[in-house]
Amino acid sequence: MLILSNEEIESFLSINTCIDALESAYRSWSKGTAINRPRTDLVIPSSSESGVYAFKSMEAGLYDPPIVAMRINSDIIRWNNQGGRVIKTKIPSAPGEKYVGLVMLFSTVTGEPLAMFPGVASSSALAARYLAREDASTLALFGSGWQAGSHLPAMCAVRPIKRVNVFSPTKANLEAFVKELQPKVSAEVRAAESPEAAVRDADIIATTTNSLSRVVNPDWVKAGLHLTCVRVPELGDETIRRIDRLVIHAHQHAPKNFIAGYGEEGIEAHDAIDIIGKGPAHAHEVKVEHPFWLSAPALKDLVSGKVSGRASAAESTCFLNNIGIGLQFAAVGAAVFNEAKAKGVGREIPTDWFLETVHP
Amino acid sequence: MLILSNEEIESFLSINTCIDALESAYRSWSKGTAINRPRTDLVIPSSSESGVYAFKSMEAGLYDPPIVAMRINSDIIRWNNQGGRVIKTKIPSAPGEKYVGLVMLFSTVTGEPLAMFPGVASSSALAARYLAREDASTLALFGSGWQAGSHLPAMCAVRPIKRVNVFSPTKANLEAFVKELQPKVSAEVRAAESPEAAVRDADIIATTTNSLSRVVNPDWVKAGLHLTCVRVPELGDETIRRIDRLVIHAHQHAPKNFIAGYGEEGIEAHDAIDIIGKGPAHAHEVKVEHPFWLSAPALKDLVSGKVSGRASAAESTCFLNNIGIGLQFAAVGAAVFNEAKAKGVGREIPTDWFLETVHP
Repeated sequence: MLILSNEEIESFLSINTCIDALESAYRSWSKGTAINRPRTDLVIPSSSESGVYAFKSMEAGLYDPPIVAMRINSDIIRWNNQGGRVIKTKIPSAPGEKYVGLVMLFSTVTGEPLAMFPGVASSSALAARYLAREDASTLALFGSGWQAGSHLPAMCAVRPIKRVNVFSPTKANLEAFVKELQPKVSAEVRAAESPEAAVRDADIIATTTNSLSRVVNPDWVKAGLHLTCVRVPELGDETIRRIDRLVIHAHQHAPKNFIAGYGEEGIEAHDAIDIIGKGPAHAHEVKVEHPFWLSAPALKDLVSGKVSGRASAAESTCFLNNIGIGLQFAAVGAAVFNEAKAKGVGREIPTDWFLETVHP
Repeated sequence: MLILSNEEIESFLSINTCIDALESAYRSWSKGTAINRPRTDLVIPSSSESGVYAFKSMEAGLYDPPIVAMRINSDIIRWNNQGGRVIKTKIPSAPGEKYVGLVMLFSTVTGEPLAMFPGVASSSALAARYLAREDASTLALFGSGWQAGSHLPAMCAVRPIKRVNVFSPTKANLEAFVKELQPKVSAEVRAAESPEAAVRDADIIATTTNSLSRVVNPDWVKAGLHLTCVRVPELGDETIRRIDRLVIHAHQHAPKNFIAGYGEEGIEAHDAIDIIGKGPAHAHEVKVEHPFWLSAPALKDLVSGKVSGRASAAESTCFLNNIGIGLQFAAVGAAVFNEAKAKGVGREIPTDWFLETVHP
């Protein structure tokens, strides 16, 4: 079994390999030759603090490549009230102040575990391949974290980006980010003075923040714009309604939450705090609202040709990243595994450690 | 992160530690200080053969010990017709003709992965602690596989067993089993000539077979008997109906199956073949039958005192092992981890390999 670090994966994985693997996987999904087990959250409210422990899992499998990937997150979460708004924070409580997010790959031919690595995967660039203007040359990027760092080169890979205007509220983070990212792309990467300065002349706006409140002003939606985000609240209903052509990631409902003390059946909610906030006696009152944008087509429909991508230079388009799915990890994970094996990267531990002679 | 083999675990784990850990976990579950995420199966039908790939997962968490355990099986499954009966077989397709069954433990305090090991867990002996006669001295055991080997010493640990009559249809397996197990217990372990000879004078009958058809003749149910099994079909409806006091493992419905080509919603079925047998066009017709015994109390109700155990020497009792749950693995897994750490058993691999510096 192969063990890989994020750094190793970044050292060899090309963005185009990733996007191509995702494209192929979404097509398979559309054809019924791939399958997802939707995300579930196992939640253990803390007895002493305001935090909770949350274990998220989801998996997906493909016929080709013959891979199943399971994605696990093991998080300590706190919801804080900041200026009347609820902010969700993951606490890096693992040794070295780190987070725990794992991908495990299994062969569907032999059943054996193939690889384990931390990692994330995003489908934003794949969506931009179908929705952004072919000649998009200016990217406005909000955020300076890991997601921003992955979106910037990915967008440059799918469109002929010449200029990237980055905005992030903390100036030191913004400047460090620009310095770090400039060598990775041929486009000019600049720190923007304000959100408004960032979006001026932008052909693509990408929000990659942790914000649970609106980042994108509805007035920024103009003819020809492509908009992409990493979470729905970054856009907000009014912005989404102004878009001509909307595509969402997947039609999965809210994850099912299994919360200690709240019964065994599981409760659908966008966030565990919606349930915990009501308390065990009223938890059943939590209703998952089906937002208006759930009627939009999904990325797999776009990639498979069931719905069209951008139809004209004047359209405004948007990819709404409404939920994560295991399929992303199966697609990118298989590509990671093949590349790592071909290049001899990573540490092997004996597969036999995880096998059984007894019929389980 | 600690890596342990089945052999290492067997070398140090005492049966009583295991049963006590299970007892405590079921009590927690009853109180709402433990939670299960029910089993789901991700299934990829093979395009070339009659087999399928199936990835099963389930997890559970406890407040105390602060552990989450995830149980994974990655199996190649075939259903064969043998004499008009459907037999489900797992194919040991992993290197060395092995099976893939894994437990992963996570800390709910720090989120970090603590341990990984293959492994199984059974609650039969815990149930026998509440349901078998205090003076039960003769055990009839059906089967000679791994489950039989784990049930025999476990039953001897909870009751003063003096004699074990083992029956298994293949004589060579039976004799090898008796020879292997005799040194592990103070009771006399004997090979029985026939099923009828095995159950004569038995206070406890334990079936630990792979049989999908009846092993226990209803006429064997007598005053004072305790009956236990590893799967429902070993007993059959008629046998179960004759029991005075019935306790089932858990009230979970059939697992939800996510099968490639059968839509994304998931379909409840006791076995994926029930769905695949109908084909994609009729898969929605699969109805999960709620068997009559689902109205019996569950093991957690028994262990927590919500329902009574054996009320008299004359009662016949039965523990119906109707489904596996993650809780067993959280309970036993935590005990395994603590013992292994205390005794310095196992191989450590760097936890840091599975951590992320980036906010996932």
